[in-house]
Amino acid sequence: MKAKIHVTLKNGVLDPQGKAVGHALSSLGFEGVGDVRQGKFIEIDLDTTDEAKAREQVDAMCRQLLANTVIENYDIAIES
Amino acid sequence: MKAKIHVTLKNGVLDPQGKAVGHALSSLGFEGVGDVRQGKFIEIDLDTTDEAKAREQVDAMCRQLLANTVIENYDIAIES
Repeated sequence: MKAKIHVTLKNGVLDPQGKAVGHALSSLGFEGVGDVRQGKFIEIDLDTTDEAKAREQVDAMCRQLLANTVIENYDIAIES
Repeated sequence: MKAKIHVTLKNGVLDPQGKAVGHALSSLGFEGVGDVRQGKFIEIDLDTTDEAKAREQVDAMCRQLLANTVIENYDIAIES
């Protein structure tokens, strides 16, 4: 199975990387660009074939390593 | 409108960041973890209400700034 994980900054947390991208886009002449937020996208191949077990395992991975839950949210999608 | 962009390394391009995450997960005791790939996830708020125009604009942003098309693929989703 494959897990696709999005790790994004929580609302209200300042995102300097996103701000830099927004400014760069404006400098390049793109108009009408509002807020820009940048997060991480992680794909993990898993041996297990049990979706519930996979989700539980990936949730533990996010809490322990992949996301800083003080300032970040994570979203998990499991694909077979 | 909101554009959601995934920027991922092309197949065959070495991903040291993903490898490091994979090793860290193994060190933490997670079993059955195969290949790990890490990419970027970017959300951009756009003023335009025309989906085709928004997609065209974001495609240009990806080619000019957000993705290195030599080694990275990008995928654009537009939401109203």
